Formats: sequence, structure tokens, C-alpha cells
Amino acid sequence: MLDYTITKQCKQTRARAGHFNTGHGKIKTPVFMPVGTLGTVKALSPEDLKTCGAQIILGNTYHLYLRPGCKVIEQFSGLHRFMGWEGPILTDSGGFQIFSLAKLTSIGNDGATFQSHIDGSRHLLSPEGAVDIQACLGSDIMMCLDQCIPYPADRSAVSEALDRTTLWANRCRNQWQAQHNGENNLFGIVQGGMYPDLRRRSVEQLTSIGFPGYAVGGLSVGEPKDLMLEMADVTLPALPDDTPRYVMGVGTPEDIVELVALGADMFDCVLPTRNARNGQFFSRTGNMNICNSQYRFDRRPVDEECGCYTCRNFSRAYLRHLYMAKELLAYRLNTLHNVFYYLNLAREIRDSILNEHFPDFRAAFYRQRGVKI
Amino acid sequence: MLDYTITKQCKQTRARAGHFNTGHGKIKTPVFMPVGTLGTVKALSPEDLKTCGAQIILGNTYHLYLRPGCKVIEQFSGLHRFMGWEGPILTDSGGFQIFSLAKLTSIGNDGATFQSHIDGSRHLLSPEGAVDIQACLGSDIMMCLDQCIPYPADRSAVSEALDRTTLWANRCRNQWQAQHNGENNLFGIVQGGMYPDLRRRSVEQLTSIGFPGYAVGGLSVGEPKDLMLEMADVTLPALPDDTPRYVMGVGTPEDIVELVALGADMFDCVLPTRNARNGQFFSRTGNMNICNSQYRFDRRPVDEECGCYTCRNFSRAYLRHLYMAKELLAYRLNTLHNVFYYLNLAREIRDSILNEHFPDFRAAFYRQRGVKI
Repeated sequence: MLDYTITKQCKQTRARAGHFNTGHGKIKTPVFMPVGTLGTVKALSPEDLKTCGAQIILGNTYHLYLRPGCKVIEQFSGLHRFMGWEGPILTDSGGFQIFSLAKLTSIGNDGATFQSHIDGSRHLLSPEGAVDIQACLGSDIMMCLDQCIPYPADRSAVSEALDRTTLWANRCRNQWQAQHNGENNLFGIVQGGMYPDLRRRSVEQLTSIGFPGYAVGGLSVGEPKDLMLEMADVTLPALPDDTPRYVMGVGTPEDIVELVALGADMFDCVLPTRNARNGQFFSRTGNMNICNSQYRFDRRPVDEECGCYTCRNFSRAYLRHLYMAKELLAYRLNTLHNVFYYLNLAREIRDSILNEHFPDFRAAFYRQRGVKI
Repeated sequence: MLDYTITKQCKQTRARAGHFNTGHGKIKTPVFMPVGTLGTVKALSPEDLKTCGAQIILGNTYHLYLRPGCKVIEQFSGLHRFMGWEGPILTDSGGFQIFSLAKLTSIGNDGATFQSHIDGSRHLLSPEGAVDIQACLGSDIMMCLDQCIPYPADRSAVSEALDRTTLWANRCRNQWQAQHNGENNLFGIVQGGMYPDLRRRSVEQLTSIGFPGYAVGGLSVGEPKDLMLEMADVTLPALPDDTPRYVMGVGTPEDIVELVALGADMFDCVLPTRNARNGQFFSRTGNMNICNSQYRFDRRPVDEECGCYTCRNFSRAYLRHLYMAKELLAYRLNTLHNVFYYLNLAREIRDSILNEHFPDFRAAFYRQRGVKI
């Protein structure tokens, strides 16, 4: 079982720094987890991820189940050896992708039936199946199958999805214990849409089942930012102090700073990787679109203070040239920078908590971006 | 001026091992030069190239002139700093691309007028202009503007292109001496199509002008392989012994082994990089199409004896998965292997010449591929 230790608790906010162990190494929180959908963080090698300082990466169960499939990954005794990543891996349950990417054909208490977005083939994902697939992937942190609901949604629809999520969480936990000896870790996922009382009900139901860690799901699904933060503010403190709290699929650098202040420990998001492929760089002073003609002759790196391979070696002019010419190297160099930026942000947040100046860090973070708070 | 030293001459063939210096480092021959068309060897970083053992890379003048343009590269005092490559760079003259890629609108003794394949804009590339652009790129080895002729071609057309190539070579040499102090190196390019006597005439005319090195152009333009080798066999020994001989745009691993035997020292080709992006791996035992379903569960590396990053870390099954899913990492890992393969082939050829067993190496090379000779 996961042994989460809080090293330092911020006195002015709910921010905390901690650590826990997995079968593939220790994780220091707050932590950002780059998204490696198909057994690769897009455009990066495992060596690149190490160089950027990634502690743990995320794999998408839905994608990996369809391609290359469990039969292939079993040959390698799991995703780690298949993709050459020696650190911890967290896998989602596949639920979110079924609702967002596949064609969902029916949903019931036994699971979700869907058609593959690749070849239209039909599949049933049951709570037990979600755990079995993740166990086959060798995931260090598995997630319960949950029903994520879009925004906006009726209270009755949210309530129904919440209850089904609890039912599935129970079945996932049973499968994990009975079939997989409770090995590695299984996290429960809080749902409840944008209804504070439903969020609290979900927390109560999940914590009474009991998990090594908890995630807040169903955020960043189209709701206004204030509402997202309000729901996190309601949910996070209701979760047990002595387990990691993971806010799924969120978000911008600002979101991460704010969610840490509310008590979140773990994050994943496609923004650094996806934006990189769209020519968008994250930096201390804000975002930069490398297509902009003002960078055509610019000999400076993207961020003069950044220690990533891209900023240490290449100019904005060169990065712009590569991106405009659609050169493959552009995607790697851009991704290297953005992933380094996010990982470094999490490191700086953690250091500031350990050094008891997280509120100062937070103020400086906004000052650098020219945001008045 | 280039000081080419022959370290060892094979006794049974015309193969030779040598070396020469450039402003950015020593080059040991035979040497393969990965093609970095637009200021990047597609999918690889300068660090990757170093890891693969690249001594020198090639840049394409036509492409770089259009994008990002000389004004941008001048900001960096040349291509080396722009792209972050510290080793030597050879640039072609732009001629070949004008004939193969752009819309050629007219050709005369003053140069070639063409329309850009990117935006249709009109440009004149004169022999003097070709040298000026390459000087602006900071090229360590510049090439004379030449008129490459397709195969098949009438003797009269080949003869005319040959004479124009000589005229341009003269003007390029004058420009190089008068405007650029004869700095770095300028190579002449032999034309003459598939006519042995025209090849010899081209060699005579160019050597009487005098260049630090010579290239054999106009090969691998659609002619049968035997004819290509026959033309190389006629041309190479006619060139001065004490200058490097560069066969442009050729070829397969077999071509390189055979051309070394005929006395060639330098090679460039898009095959390793282009084939990598098409899922084709080069290996000791022949070629491999990673899409093939036989590799789906294959835990072996592409080549168990290969020392490249890809073969040391990843299986055929993983590489097949990445390629089938069109993951960006596939292009880099495939390219790393193929470029390493070509560079290693050149290293092994060189070592075998130095150790006086090139004929044995050549026999073993074919034996490994199951080819009887």
C-alpha cells in the first residue's frame, strides 16, 4: 500500500509537499505527470523524459487497449519494458476516453459498450476489465472506472453518474484485491459535476470504500475556470489528508499553482505536449506563439532563464524556421521545452513549500506574467 | 586549401582511406554525410548526430535560400550557429533542386531562372550567386553550380549541359577567389551523363580549372545500376589522386561499398532518413519493413549487433507500434538507426581499408545479406 508522507504543510494555504513510494521509484509531490497516451510522451524518448526530470508518466488505458493491445504488452510484462521507461506509470481507467473519443453505444451498471475510434470494433469496458487491463499494463497507479459527465449537466444526470461511479469503484476495488492481490495502487475518482453537495457525497462514498489515493475527476470539461476552482476547493479538503490527491486533466500553469494552494498533489495535462505541437511555448512571462513573425531574426532562446536542452542550444529564429517548415525536430524541441517548463514549475512549487515561501512564489509567479492579484 | 592525405590505399581495389581538414574539424574518409536539407537532418538534433558519429552533414542551398533565407542565417554568421551544429557542413549549389523540385523557367549561360516550389516567386540562380549564398551559409565545402541532366538524354543535350557546367565552374571559382578570398573549399562537379568520353571531357575541363576536390554529379538519376557504376568506374580514376572524390546523392549500402572499391571517398544520400520515415530499416542482413505483422510481438531489436540508441533500447514490436500509430517518436528512432547504420558502414569500410582487408569486408558484407558474388 501507498505510504504518503507530508514533509511540509504550508501555513497560509492548503499547499503541501510530500512523497510516496511505488514499485518503480519514489514520487515527490506536488508532481506533474507528462501524458504518454500510446506508450510514448509524444515526440519524446524515455531519455528525454529523464533529462527533463519526469518522475512519473501517464498512460491511457483506452488507447493502449486498442493499440497495440494487451497481448503485445504482455510479451514485455507490462508497459515499462515495452516503452523503455523505468520510472512509475499511472494509467487512467479508459472511461474518460470512451466518453470523449470513442462512440459510446450503451452504458449500464456492468460497464460501457463502445466502438473503437480506429476501426469501429465493439468492446465492453467493465469495472473489472478496466482493472485487469491496467494490471496487464503493469501500472503503478491504476484508476477506477468512472463515469465522467460533461458540463453543463442536470443534477439528476450527475447524481446518477456519481452513484454508478461509486458502484464501479467498489467493483474495481474488489477485483484489485481478489484478482491482483491488491498489488500496486488503485485510486478512486470523485465525480459530482458542479454540485458541491454531490462532490461531498462522492467523497464520502469513496472514502468509505477506502483507496490508497483519490483523484478529482470531471473538472476542466468546459466549465468556467472559477467554477473549476470552486469544485476543487469543495472537494480537496474533504479527502483524507494522508493520501495523495490527484486533479485529473488539469491544467494551465496558473491552474496548477491555484490547485496546489487548494491542496492538490498530482496533475496531468496534455497542454504542454499538445501546445508544443501547435507552436505554443510556455514561459515564465506567459505564452509565446513561435509562428509570430517578430521572432524571425530573434537570436534569443525562448526563455533565457530556462535550463532545457532547447533553450540552452537554439534560438527563437531557428525554432520558428523549423516550425514553419514543419520539420520533425520542431515537435521534439518544442515538447522538450514545454514538458521541462511544467516539470520545473512543479519542482519550484515544491521547493517553495519546503522552504516555507509558497505564497511568495505564487505572488512572483503572477508578477512575472504581468498579472495583478 | 584542402590538404587531402591518403593513409592507406587498398592493393586489390581502388579503395582508399584518408583524411582532410576543414575550418570545423577533420574528416576521415570514406565518409557518409547525412542530409540536413533545411538546417536539420530530419527528426534528429545535433546531439543525435554526434551520438551517431556524424563527421559532416550536408545542407541544401536551394531550400535554405528560400527558407529561412540568407538574411536570417546571416544573423547567426552562418548555418553552424543557426542550427547548433559545430562540425563541418557541405552545401550543394542549389542546381540539382532547381532542376528536380522548382519550376525551371529558363536556363542560359548566366544561370537558371526558377519559380519557388513554396510560393511560386521568381529567382535567378547564377554561378556567382550560388557561391555567394553558400559563403553566407558558412559552408565548409561549397559546390559549383552545375547543370544536371536527366536519364535518358541525347548526347547533344548532355554535351551542352557539360559545357555550361564547365563555364559555370570557371565563374564559380573566380567568384570564390575574388569575393571570398578562396576561403573554405569549392568543389567542381563532373557531368557528362552516361557517355564515357563526355565524362572524361568534363574531368579534363574541371581539373584544368583546378579545385580542392571533385564531385561526380548526374548519377542515380534513373539509369540502371550497372550503368551508374560504369560511369563511376570511368570518372573516378580520371580525377586527381590527391583530392577527395565525392559521388553525389548515391546510394544504397551496396552502392557505397562498390563506389569505395572504385575510388570514391565521400557520399550523401536521403535513403537512410527518407526510408526511416517510411518505416524501412537498414540492417546487416538486408532491409526490414517495420509495418510487417510478423514483428507485432517481436521482442528483439532491429539488429542485435547494432550499437545505436534505438537498437540498444527498443524492440521491433515497440517500433512497429509507434510507426503504425504514427507517433512522432517513431520518426526519430527509425532515423537514428538508419543514420547510425550508414555512418557505421562507412566507419567499417574505412577500418577494413586501414587494416588491409577491404576485399574480405566486401565479401562478408554480401554474405550477410545472402547475396552470392
